[in-house]
Parts: sequence; structure tokens; C-alpha cells
Amino acid sequence: MFFLKPTKKRIYLDHAAATPLNKEVVAEMVSVLQSSFGNPSAIHQEGIMVRNIVENGRAKVATVLGIKPTGVTFTSGGTESNNLAILGLVEKLHQEGRAYSDMEVLTTKIEHPSISEVLPVLTAKGVMVRFIEVDNEGKITVSALEAVLSPKTVLITFAYANSEVGVVQSVSRLTRVVRRYQKENQTKIFVHIDAAQAPLWLPCQLERLDVDLMSLDVGKCNGPKGIGVLAKRGLVSLAPILFGGGQEQGLRPGTENVACIAGAAKALEIAQANYQARAERVSLVRDNFIELIKQTVPEVLLNGLEGEERLANNINISLPKIDTEFAVVYLDTHGISASTKSACAGAGSGESKVVAVMTGDTKRAKSTLRLSLGEETTMSDMKYVLDILIKYRQKMEKLTK
Amino acid sequence: MFFLKPTKKRIYLDHAAATPLNKEVVAEMVSVLQSSFGNPSAIHQEGIMVRNIVENGRAKVATVLGIKPTGVTFTSGGTESNNLAILGLVEKLHQEGRAYSDMEVLTTKIEHPSISEVLPVLTAKGVMVRFIEVDNEGKITVSALEAVLSPKTVLITFAYANSEVGVVQSVSRLTRVVRRYQKENQTKIFVHIDAAQAPLWLPCQLERLDVDLMSLDVGKCNGPKGIGVLAKRGLVSLAPILFGGGQEQGLRPGTENVACIAGAAKALEIAQANYQARAERVSLVRDNFIELIKQTVPEVLLNGLEGEERLANNINISLPKIDTEFAVVYLDTHGISASTKSACAGAGSGESKVVAVMTGDTKRAKSTLRLSLGEETTMSDMKYVLDILIKYRQKMEKLTK
Repeated sequence: MFFLKPTKKRIYLDHAAATPLNKEVVAEMVSVLQSSFGNPSAIHQEGIMVRNIVENGRAKVATVLGIKPTGVTFTSGGTESNNLAILGLVEKLHQEGRAYSDMEVLTTKIEHPSISEVLPVLTAKGVMVRFIEVDNEGKITVSALEAVLSPKTVLITFAYANSEVGVVQSVSRLTRVVRRYQKENQTKIFVHIDAAQAPLWLPCQLERLDVDLMSLDVGKCNGPKGIGVLAKRGLVSLAPILFGGGQEQGLRPGTENVACIAGAAKALEIAQANYQARAERVSLVRDNFIELIKQTVPEVLLNGLEGEERLANNINISLPKIDTEFAVVYLDTHGISASTKSACAGAGSGESKVVAVMTGDTKRAKSTLRLSLGEETTMSDMKYVLDILIKYRQKMEKLTK
Repeated sequence: MFFLKPTKKRIYLDHAAATPLNKEVVAEMVSVLQSSFGNPSAIHQEGIMVRNIVENGRAKVATVLGIKPTGVTFTSGGTESNNLAILGLVEKLHQEGRAYSDMEVLTTKIEHPSISEVLPVLTAKGVMVRFIEVDNEGKITVSALEAVLSPKTVLITFAYANSEVGVVQSVSRLTRVVRRYQKENQTKIFVHIDAAQAPLWLPCQLERLDVDLMSLDVGKCNGPKGIGVLAKRGLVSLAPILFGGGQEQGLRPGTENVACIAGAAKALEIAQANYQARAERVSLVRDNFIELIKQTVPEVLLNGLEGEERLANNINISLPKIDTEFAVVYLDTHGISASTKSACAGAGSGESKVVAVMTGDTKRAKSTLRLSLGEETTMSDMKYVLDILIKYRQKMEKLTK
């Protein structure tokens, strides 16, 4: 369709929802798609060739995450990884003899649907789900965590960095509390983090964070859609949630997605290779914009924290006076891609559940605007965005007068 | 690795496990990977562009299968499609108030692991799984079906064409029996077929076959791995088996695999466009080979049927005198890719469960060799294969003398 074809430079600020593919990643995938088509389980040459691609990919991902290759399970994306981590762990413990009613899973009320929508499945089984309170900025505090830990706790699951408001949880600090608790109470508690938003901006080594399980979505870090990783450290046993062949050590059946696995390895390598420099650069642009919009649009409210506890590329503001859903459309006509909230939570409509939970302010939650920056986003891009936003605000003011 | 690089023409006879990608499919995918990266749920230009790709793909697949676009659900492959069909239907009926103990699911003992491994999940819930007997050739007869139908039957699930022995079930004849039974007994029975092996060789229109649900795996018909379709006709309600965002009408969460969806549509279009001519051509090669090997290797046993009730590209023989697992390795060193059985059932080792069930003959089941042909396979290729097989047999005879 002609009118949808981009004709001039776009300013894409929806990297939290989807990222452009890295050229090296595309090259890697195209090479696999064009030359290697065997089934990795086959024992002939074509099979061995693709088995090598899969296992090389696994080894690379393992190295990036600082775990053993056996700790890498490839899935169809972040959603499946989160489902497998949560349901797979609880199911495995149940199979090992632990009653559902003897298990508690801790999480927060600001999680992505691929965590929050799994919870009713747990409660239907008789597992108790308890919510860790988050503060006004979306942060899990040590005291909030301590308040809900119990000898029945088997799993804690939350986002490393929230996809809407960009709050980065102090994972190591929280896991220290958990490890101390489990030692004192002689229990075993597994910590799972949803790191879908992390690889481009934050360290993703499981050891360093002291987590047992980590979900990754390659489509969110310049890799292809349709591929995810569930990373495990040490002795974590899971039950499969899909049933079939013995692929992925019996944990995830179905022919391996060879081309996407090759692309995933490349994307994660590049993402983690220089995340620090990338984060420093982009957070400067982020902070400049936040400063600027505070000065020029006095009613603006920043959702989430400032500084290092905010994801380097995340800006989430509320503009209580204006219809931000229509603002996204207006920005779009001016070449800017933004969103109000998470794409998986229905990009188009309704309030942000995350901001509602954090602030208790419905009006604020209904007027969110998320600008998630990319590596290439410049301050001049952001100045243009601000200009358009101010223009839109003036327009709306005129209309409502 | 140097020694794995193919240096001369290979004769690839493992199309049941994996198929080379069609060049048009690769071109379609590369174009998407290079140019369109948005999240289909986003409401800006990048989002709308990829939403169009996804919905165009869905519309094309729907046209190919003769159903409405809303009947097309994209999954991560045939395994997930089978899981969703079976678990999703039973779960939905349960949610609607039907007790698990009031449900019976019918299947056979020769199904792919992505069906057979789902059955324990059903029985654990209290659903009764009943097996329809297959005859010596793997065929479901009308009388065998009638013997297990009951007022409690809610679902019948089986492979359209068996991936190991290539038996093509008489789907329409079986569904006629089912439709008559459900009318007489005022029940509703859903028929699901696993059509993973079908698109290149058999008609895949749900109406024509009178089935309610059909699983497809795009990697098995010259398309990419990691993408499947669950096709629904008419009023079939399913519950999701993964939990998260509202994608795929709430049935399958997670960001859509845009590039693979575009590739899937193209692959399925091409596969079904001229399946008849393709099947006629390849089945001639198949039949010539079967005739020839019968003449030259008198102890050969053909597993499955001859003629139209056999998948056009499937040859499955038992060579009771020889170690066929090692034969696969020997063939491989002579440039020929074959297998003993299904890759998902562990390509390398053990007996073929399918042949064991069909024939009750363990020795026969331990000496299977599956040659699954492609569109390009010629009679001269197959004569070479026969020569190598005979050479191998002579070698083995000498060794054991």
C-alpha cells in the first residue's frame, strides 16, 4: 500500500516493542536459510551440518551468559521462555512430590502479560501467588521482598527491567536476601528474571546476578522474532510444557529453528559485547530529553526512576492533559514511532496497568507515552520529538478551549 | 569443519524430516528480515507495515486451506500445533463445563511423538484415551473406528499421512462415519489431523476432508523451520496452552514471527498449487524403486501400502538381514541421506515403534530404512541408491559369514 511506505527518515522510538535487525544477524540467517536445511536430529551429513549450527549457537549463547551450553534452551520467544520457566519449574517440583498447596510463587503486579497471565494457571492448580509490593517508581525493595518470603516460597519471578517504565530491579541485592533466607530456613528458592529488555543495556550473566533462570527474547535485541532463550544456571530441573520429540534435552520438543538460532547467537553476542558503552551513550540522550521536557512542559510526569536504575533507552512520561493514544498517531504522521505502553498489553488502548499499580493514579496511567530509544537515536531526533509533542499539546489545548 | 562440507552432488532422501527451502520462500523472508522489523501490535507505521505482512500471510494460508483467515493460527511448528489442537480443545471443553472424566480422545498407536507424548497429559487429567486399531499396513479401517466411538468421544486425532511409513488415511471416509455417529447420538466430535507430511503431496482443504482442525509444519514443505499453522474450520473454540499477550485472537501469545509467516504463506501456496502433478511424478519414481528392490533384494519387506494410499514420496522398507542404522551411515558416506525412522523419535537408534505396532514384528521394526523422496529425485538417483544398498548388503554378508 502506497501510503504506508516510508518515504523519509523515520524516528523510531519503539525499541521496547521491536528492534531493527542487525545486518550481521541477517547475513548469518540468510546464509543458513540458503545453504543448510537438514534436520538436526538426522545422522547424515545434512543433519550433522545443522546440528553443528545449533550447537555452535548454543555454545555462543552460553558463553555470553556465562553458563554451560546445557543451560541454554531455545524457545519460540520471550513469552514461551517465561511460561516454561514458571510452569516448568512448578510442574517439576510437583512431579518430584511437592504438593501444589505447599508452593508459593512471588512476583509483582507490574509484570508483562507473559508472566501475569501465567499466574491464574498456577492458582488454578492450588499454588499460592503472592505479590511483592513495588514502590511509586516500580522498584522492588528489600523490605517488600522480605515481607512475602516464606518457607513455602519456591520461585520468585519478575522483570529485570520493566518493559513499560524501564525500572531496573536491583537483582543482586534481592538475590542476596533470597540466598540468606533460604540458608536460614533450609529451603530452596529459585529466582527467575525476565530479561527481555536487558541484553542491549544491562549485564546478563546469571552468575553475576545470582539468578537461576533468565528469559531472553531475541527480537528485542536486534535479532529475529520467533526465537527466545531460557537460560538456566546450575541444577535447575524443569518439566516441559509442550510435548513431543526429545529435542533440547527433552525440555522443548519440535525441530530446532536453525536459522533463528544462528541469528540469536549473533544478536546476543553483539548486544552484550558493548552494552556498557551503548547504555552510557543512549542514557545521555534520554536524560537530556527528560530534562528538556520538564523545562518546557511543566505538567509532565516521569514514570519510573531517574539515573542508573532506569533502563538506558526508556522514557515513560504521563501528560495528564492530553490524549496520548492520539498523540502516538499524531507523532506517527510526523515520522515518529512511539507507543503508550507494552505491545503485548494491547498497544492501542486502555490505561497502563503498570503505571496504575505504581502510582495509584488512573489519570496518570491513562496518559502514558513511552519513547524507547535505539542505539542510533540522537539528541537532535529527540528535540524534534519534543517540538512535535509541544505542537500537539497546543493543538489539543485550542480544541478543548 | 572441512569434512562435513558437501563437495559433490548429494542424493537427499530425508524429506520427511526436513526439506530444502524454496528459493522464492527465502527471497520473501530475506525481504522481510531486511526491511520490516516493527511489532505487529504497534499502531505506528512500522507496526502497521508488519501487521499487513502477517495478515496477508494469514489470508493466503486461509485461501490455500479453504477456510476463513480467523481459522489460521500461527504457531512455532507442527509440534506446537498438535499440542494446541489436542490440549486446547480438551481444556476449552473443560472450561465450558464438561468433566474430564466425561471425555474420550481417540487416536492410534502409530502417531508422531507430538501427538503420542500429549496423551499422558490427557490421562493425568482424567480424560480417557482410546486407541483405534490400525491394520498391518497402518491403515485405520471404518470398523476399527466404529469399535471405539462412544458418546463420550470429543476428539479424534491422527496423522493424515504417517511420517514413517507413509500410510495415507482415508480421511473423508472416516469423517463420514464420525458425522453420521454424532448425528445419531446427538454429540459433537472434533476431528483433528496432523497434516505435517501432506502439503506437497495431498489436498489440504479442511472442507473437502471434513475435518475440524489441521496441523501443518512449514519446515516440512520447503518453508522455514520454526513456524507452523493450526487451521480451524467453522466453530471450533480452543483454550490457549501458552499464556501472555492477546496475539492470534488470544489463542497464541507472543510477538508474531513475521518473516517466517511470510515464508510460510509462500511455501504453502507453492506446495498446494501443484501437489497433484508433483505427487504423480514422484510416486512413479517411488514405485519403480519398490519394484526394482523387490526383484533384486528378495528378503526386502515393504512397510505400509502400495499405490495411492501411500504418500507419494515415502519408501519404507525393512531389510531384516542387515543393520539399517549403520546402513544410513554407509549410504551417507556414499552421498545419500536417508533415515531409519522419524527424526523426532530419535533418528539414530532403537526400533521403529510405528512398524512394531503395525506388524507386531520386532525384527522387522529394528531393520527399517526410510527413503523420503523430493520433487527433484530421479530414477537414476534411486538406481544408484539401490546399487549402494546392494553393495552394503554384500559387505555385511561377508562380515557375518
